[in-house]
Amino acid sequence: MAGYRNEKDQLLRRLRRVEGQIRGLHRMVDTDTYCIDVLTQVSAATKALQSVALHLLESHLAHCVHAAIADGGSAEADAKVAEATQAIARLMRA
Amino acid sequence: MAGYRNEKDQLLRRLRRVEGQIRGLHRMVDTDTYCIDVLTQVSAATKALQSVALHLLESHLAHCVHAAIADGGSAEADAKVAEATQAIARLMRA
Amino acid sequence: MAGYRNEKDQLLRRLRRVEGQIRGLHRMVDTDTYCIDVLTQVSAATKALQSVALHLLESHLAHCVHAAIADGGSAEADAKVAEATQAIARLMRA
Amino acid sequence: MAGYRNEKDQLLRRLRRVEGQIRGLHRMVDTDTYCIDVLTQVSAATKALQSVALHLLESHLAHCVHAAIADGGSAEADAKVAEATQAIARLMRA
Repeated sequence: MAGYRNEKDQLLRRLRRVEGQIRGLHRMVDTDTYCIDVLTQVSAATKALQSVALHLLESHLAHCVHAAIADGGSAEADAKVAEATQAIARLMRA
Repeated sequence: MAGYRNEKDQLLRRLRRVEGQIRGLHRMVDTDTYCIDVLTQVSAATKALQSVALHLLESHLAHCVHAAIADGGSAEADAKVAEATQAIARLMRA
Repeated sequence: MAGYRNEKDQLLRRLRRVEGQIRGLHRMVDTDTYCIDVLTQVSAATKALQSVALHLLESHLAHCVHAAIADGGSAEADAKVAEATQAIARLMRA
Repeated sequence: MAGYRNEKDQLLRRLRRVEGQIRGLHRMVDTDTYCIDVLTQVSAATKALQSVALHLLESHLAHCVHAAIADGGSAEADAKVAEATQAIARLMRA
């Protein structure tokens, strides 16, 4: 069960918006927009994606990791925490 | 004139691919994919966007900043370097 | 109670190593080392600091957040998760 | 010749300050400071290091890359730009 079920609609809306930003970038490059202005939009799209990641992460901690700790044994909880930490590491290095 | 004119097609292809990744993310959330798997794809899409940024930046330095230094006076070159540095700062903090 | 008590010695050693890297950077700048070589070392020191952050974060989730979920009510657990997410956001934007 | 010669003193001062921040982190861990407070300081130290990197990068572009473009042939300029872009890529992924 996905941990983000309570904010699925919000996440889908955010992803639509990012998709629009990427299409906007395509248009900017297609019409030879000045590099720095394109880069500014790349930064904005990256920030929007990172914000999606943080919402997913918070839901994951509040639901999936929460459930592993509340229901499961300590081994399952440790595994969930390690898995979440690795996901955070990938986000920080992206 | 955009500094990336020689690799415009490559940039447009890369952006199409990122757009596909974002649509893939939408599908994953829509079908309740496990949070960590969605996060892994968010990291991949972010990395792809950062790669677009680095290609834009290299073209910008090799063409726009290059031209400002080769043709322009020292004031124009300094302004271009400051502008590029600010764009890099935005990318690092995105 | 700090969540990292079981790996305090390891964290202290890692921080000593980062301190050594910063002193190394000071020496490099003091002896006019080529910019790119200094930047490579700045990246290495940043990576080492981020690694300290990830260890702290994993301990925090495995102990403090774990305890809030296991012992506390749901409000306390939610507060801990929100606090951790904000810390992750600061690390991603650093 | 290092590109940062005009702001060497400022860079050395900034690095001293980062070194102090790392020592402060050591003290915080040594005295069992709450994880989240330590993480906040790790973010601050990382930000300070990234700021050192941006200053180095701006000096490098304004002096070393500038000189390669102004004096050297186009091959040397391209090599400098590629080298700078790789350094930026390392900083973004740190």
